[in-house]
Amino acid sequence: MSRTVRAEIVGVGTELLLGQIANTNARWMGERLSAIGVDVLHHQVVGDNLGRIVEALRLSLSRADVVLVTGGLGPTEDDITRDAVAELLEVPMARHDEIERFLRDRFAGFGRGEMPANNLRQADVPRGARFIMPEIGSAPGLIADLPDGGRLYAMPGVPAEMVEMMERVILPELEDLVGGAVVRSRTIRCVGIGESRVAEILADLFATSMNPSLAYLASDGEVKVRITAKAATVDDAEAMIAPLASDVADRLGDVVFTRDDESLEQAVIRSLRTSGLTLACAESLTGGGASARLTSVPGASTVFVGAAVVYTAAAKRDILGVSDATIAGPGVVSRECALEMAAGARRVFGTDLAISLTGAAGPEPHDGAVPGTTWVALEGEHVAHARGYVAPGSRERVRRWAEQSALDLVRRHLAGIAFPGSDRPI
Amino acid sequence: MSRTVRAEIVGVGTELLLGQIANTNARWMGERLSAIGVDVLHHQVVGDNLGRIVEALRLSLSRADVVLVTGGLGPTEDDITRDAVAELLEVPMARHDEIERFLRDRFAGFGRGEMPANNLRQADVPRGARFIMPEIGSAPGLIADLPDGGRLYAMPGVPAEMVEMMERVILPELEDLVGGAVVRSRTIRCVGIGESRVAEILADLFATSMNPSLAYLASDGEVKVRITAKAATVDDAEAMIAPLASDVADRLGDVVFTRDDESLEQAVIRSLRTSGLTLACAESLTGGGASARLTSVPGASTVFVGAAVVYTAAAKRDILGVSDATIAGPGVVSRECALEMAAGARRVFGTDLAISLTGAAGPEPHDGAVPGTTWVALEGEHVAHARGYVAPGSRERVRRWAEQSALDLVRRHLAGIAFPGSDRPI
Repeated sequence: MSRTVRAEIVGVGTELLLGQIANTNARWMGERLSAIGVDVLHHQVVGDNLGRIVEALRLSLSRADVVLVTGGLGPTEDDITRDAVAELLEVPMARHDEIERFLRDRFAGFGRGEMPANNLRQADVPRGARFIMPEIGSAPGLIADLPDGGRLYAMPGVPAEMVEMMERVILPELEDLVGGAVVRSRTIRCVGIGESRVAEILADLFATSMNPSLAYLASDGEVKVRITAKAATVDDAEAMIAPLASDVADRLGDVVFTRDDESLEQAVIRSLRTSGLTLACAESLTGGGASARLTSVPGASTVFVGAAVVYTAAAKRDILGVSDATIAGPGVVSRECALEMAAGARRVFGTDLAISLTGAAGPEPHDGAVPGTTWVALEGEHVAHARGYVAPGSRERVRRWAEQSALDLVRRHLAGIAFPGSDRPI
Repeated sequence: MSRTVRAEIVGVGTELLLGQIANTNARWMGERLSAIGVDVLHHQVVGDNLGRIVEALRLSLSRADVVLVTGGLGPTEDDITRDAVAELLEVPMARHDEIERFLRDRFAGFGRGEMPANNLRQADVPRGARFIMPEIGSAPGLIADLPDGGRLYAMPGVPAEMVEMMERVILPELEDLVGGAVVRSRTIRCVGIGESRVAEILADLFATSMNPSLAYLASDGEVKVRITAKAATVDDAEAMIAPLASDVADRLGDVVFTRDDESLEQAVIRSLRTSGLTLACAESLTGGGASARLTSVPGASTVFVGAAVVYTAAAKRDILGVSDATIAGPGVVSRECALEMAAGARRVFGTDLAISLTGAAGPEPHDGAVPGTTWVALEGEHVAHARGYVAPGSRERVRRWAEQSALDLVRRHLAGIAFPGSDRPI
C-alpha cells in the first residue's frame, strides 16, 4: 500500500530572488519527486534572511509532510540555513568532530594552507538533527524530524551537490515513506495545431480523467499533452496510461508527431533513418536554424548531408540556381523561390529530399513581404510541395515556426500523411 | 525621493511543480525588478488549483506591495488564474467585447476555421480589474488594485508574452511607483576566459564596491560582469558606473567583447557593418548554429551572405573543395580541413571573410577525434588562422563553445587584436 506524501521545496538564496540564477534545483527535484509518487504542492524562494527563512519553513511544515530546502549551507556569513533550522527546532547548535575532521582533511588536500575559521561553521548541526556527509563539495546536509511528525531535509544549493544527496540518501528515504507507489507519464506532442483546439478535442477526457490525468503545455509551434498515472507498480501505471494515450493520439490524428516525448527534429531524423532517405536544407529566413536543430540529434550524420544558408538574392541564384525571373518577379519570399531553393539544395547535396525556408523574419518587411511571411517547401523525386502563411510575433518566433513547418513537411511526407493547407494563404 | 516597493513573484502551473519546466520567468522578472529598485523578497510556485492559488495570492499580498503572477491565463480549463483573482477580489467576472473582437480577429487570421468556444474565457476580466491587451499571443494580462492598497499583475506564463507585457506596461508602472531612485547597470561581457580568473583579476574591486556593486555571471562560453548603481537620477547612476566600468574593462583587456551587454553575434555583426566587410560560414560540427546566431541579429543581411553546412566528408569536398588528401590524411577534424573549409566558403560565397567550424560534438568519436575536439578557422585576403582545442561537456556545450570561438576569431581580426593560442593544443 502507498500513502500520500505531500512535499514542498524551499530555495534559499538572495541570488535566486535577484534573478542571477534560475531555480533549476526546484525543477529537478520536482521531476524526481513526482516520479516516485510524492505530491509537490508548493515551491518557495526566500533570501538569506534568518527571520524570513524560519517563517518560510514554518509555513511549509504547516502544509506539507516533507520540506526540502536547498542553499545556505556554505561556509560564509550569509549561509544561515543551519541557524534557521536550529531556531525552528528551538535547539542549540552542536559541533560534530566527524565533520570537522572531514573539513580539515579536505582543506589540507587543496594545499592552500590553514583552513579559514569560517569553514568550521559547516561542522555545526542543530541538536537532535542528523547530518548527511557530502560526497561532492564540502557542505553537509541536514535531516530534522519535527515534533509533530514533519520532516525537513536541507541540502547545498550547488546543483551537483544537491543531486548527489538526493539520489544517495533522500529519494530512497522518501520512496520508503511513500511505500511502493510510482508515478509514470507519457507525453504526446503535436505540431500545426493550437492549444485551444487540442483542449476542445480532449475536453471530456480532461474533465473526467483524474488518475491517469491529462495536462497541456504549449510552447513555440507545438502543443504537448502529458498523461500521468500513479499506481503500485510501473506496469500498473503503464497499463493505466496506455488506453488513454491511444484515445488522445487517435483523436488528435495526424498532427501528432510523437507519442514518446521526442522533439520534432528527433522524430524527423528517426523517420529518415527508418526509410533510408537523405535530407538537405536550403535556408534563408532561418539562417541555419533548421539544420542546427537536425544536427543536434546524435547520429544525424547518417541521413543529414548538409545545408546551404543563402542569405542574399545573389547567393540564392549562384549557389542554388534560383532563377533571375523568380528573383525579379515574385521575389525571394515566394512559393516559386521556396520550390527552386529546395530543388537546388537537393541537386547540390545529391540527397533524396530537401527542404527550404524563406521569408521575412522582421522587424522590417523583406523584398515586399510583410514581417512574418513564410514559405517552406519540400522536394523529392515524387514530391514538390510549398506552404505559405504569415506568422505572428517576434523575429525569433517567426523563425521557430518556420522550422516547425519545414520539419513537419518531411515528417508528413515520410509518414504518407497529407500536407496541411496554408495557415493563411498568401 | 524614492520609496521602498516590496514585490513577490507567484508562478502558477502544475508543470512547474512537476519539474516539466524551470521557473525561468521568475529569474527574468527578479533581475528586471531589482534593476529598477524594487525589492523582491519571495517567490512562490503553486499548481493549477483554485484554492491554493487564492491562498498563495493572499499570502503574497499580506507581505508585499506588488504581486506579479505568471501563468494560468490561457484558454483551457486548467487556466484558472482569472478565477482566482475574481475570488480574491470577491467580484464576478465581466466579459469584454474589445477582447472578444481581438480574439476572433486573431483566430480568423490563422485560417483554422471556427474559434473554439473555450477561447472566449480569455475575454473575461474580474469586475473592477484592468486588462492588458497582448501584443504577442492571445492571453490578456490583468491589473487589480486591492482595497488595502496592494496591486496584483497577472501575466501569461509563455516567456515571450510575459516579457512583452512587463516591458511595455508593468515595469514602467513600477518605475513610477518606486519614484525617484533609479537603478542602472552595465554589463561587460568576455569570451575566452573563465569565471574564476575574472574573479581573481577583480577580487579587490569586488570586495570594496557596494554602490556601484559588481556581480559575475558565467554561462556557456562567456562571463558577464555586471556593475549596478542606485542613485537619484539616471545621470548620477551612470556617472557612478563609468569609472568602475572602465577599470573593470581595462583590467580584463582584450577578452572583453562588449561594454554594453551585446551578444557576441551582435558585436560581430556591428563590427562587420562598421568595417564594410562581408562574411560567410562553413559549418560541420555546429550544423548551422553559428549562422543561425548571426542571422538572429536584425540587419545581418547587409554583411552576412550565407553558409555551407557540410555534414559529410563528400559535402565538404564537393561543395567547399576540401581535398581528398586532407580527408584521407589528417581527416575532417583537423587544422587543414578547417582552413580548407573557410577558404572554400569564402570562394563559394564571394565574401571578404569566412569562418569554419569542424569537430567531434560527441557522444561518439568522429573520424578518429575524441568528443569535444574542435577546430575553427578564419580566412580573409590577408589572414588565415586556425585554432584547435578539446572542449569538455555535452554535445550541446561543445557546439556552443565552437560557435563562441569562431565568432571570436572574426571579432579579434576586425579589432586588430592578437588571436589566442590553443586552449589545449591538439
